[in-house]
Amino acid sequence: MPLYTAIIREGFVSDDTKAKIAKEITRIHTSVMKVPSSFVRVVFLSYPKGAGFTAGEEAPTAALNCVLRSGHTAEEKTDMLKQLWAMFQKLTGIATDQLALSLQEVPSSNAMEMGQIMQAVGHE
Amino acid sequence: MPLYTAIIREGFVSDDTKAKIAKEITRIHTSVMKVPSSFVRVVFLSYPKGAGFTAGEEAPTAALNCVLRSGHTAEEKTDMLKQLWAMFQKLTGIATDQLALSLQEVPSSNAMEMGQIMQAVGHE
Amino acid sequence: MPLYTAIIREGFVSDDTKAKIAKEITRIHTSVMKVPSSFVRVVFLSYPKGAGFTAGEEAPTAALNCVLRSGHTAEEKTDMLKQLWAMFQKLTGIATDQLALSLQEVPSSNAMEMGQIMQAVGHE
Repeated sequence: MPLYTAIIREGFVSDDTKAKIAKEITRIHTSVMKVPSSFVRVVFLSYPKGAGFTAGEEAPTAALNCVLRSGHTAEEKTDMLKQLWAMFQKLTGIATDQLALSLQEVPSSNAMEMGQIMQAVGHE
Repeated sequence: MPLYTAIIREGFVSDDTKAKIAKEITRIHTSVMKVPSSFVRVVFLSYPKGAGFTAGEEAPTAALNCVLRSGHTAEEKTDMLKQLWAMFQKLTGIATDQLALSLQEVPSSNAMEMGQIMQAVGHE
Repeated sequence: MPLYTAIIREGFVSDDTKAKIAKEITRIHTSVMKVPSSFVRVVFLSYPKGAGFTAGEEAPTAALNCVLRSGHTAEEKTDMLKQLWAMFQKLTGIATDQLALSLQEVPSSNAMEMGQIMQAVGHE
């Protein structure tokens, strides 16, 4: 936590680009949210051509979702989303209408890291 | 956003059926929730046989999850869930005890589409 | 619902271990949350080497996420998380810094099982 899951079409992003995106997500998240980088996880899940759709039509749609603790300010979340969007689009060249970002917040007590129930934001 | 993720066993649904399901999800969502179809994304993630379980036993379990903005009424959500269930079961023939649907709501300010932080429901 | 999604690196867990983990998740969840085992679904989604990152570096990171109905007590959730952590680490041998657990709660009216909108916790 945060756990970032990027859902992309197979072959859309090279392993080298995945590594760059993961580094950038980690840099952006720790910078904006002031959490240790060791908490930041990024996983790319791929779907084959023919398994992704936008507006009901087959498309190379991509989604970047983050599960994180609640407690960050609206300003922090907006700032982070905008930085993530710009970075992801720059590194992948994805079309503006094929990307969606979302943040899913859970109470810190709903998560475990390092063998411990997580503490509230601002207490680590 | 909405982002629909269908988790299914590999081979359970053909590409042709995936396309039909995506069209139907898009039709149902836009009809009930009154949002532009260009916001509706559907991705199928598959797991191999031996990686899905119901009640602790290996099974061809399937889940259809939707991440969407909060702000829709309980009636809209119930209506949409029931239509999605009937459609998914009709097109796949899945057993009644092997399907789960869920809606995960996030504040509109927690999501980006088209390069913009999303607006509240009812304002696009 | 609950729907458990384990995200792991390909080859990290054998099919035999997946089956054991699914049985244990089902046992722990039904025991702590007092729900029928037929509601408990577990799916393993795998990513290839090179697609998972912790702290910005490639790593065999794993996440176990559960989407469940809201309405359980903080004590129940803490108890369950701790049991899940210990079980998952024992059966997989995963490093303490490579695992994250999270619970994502949704209102019961946001979910369908067995062809029905789910009832509130404590009413089945």
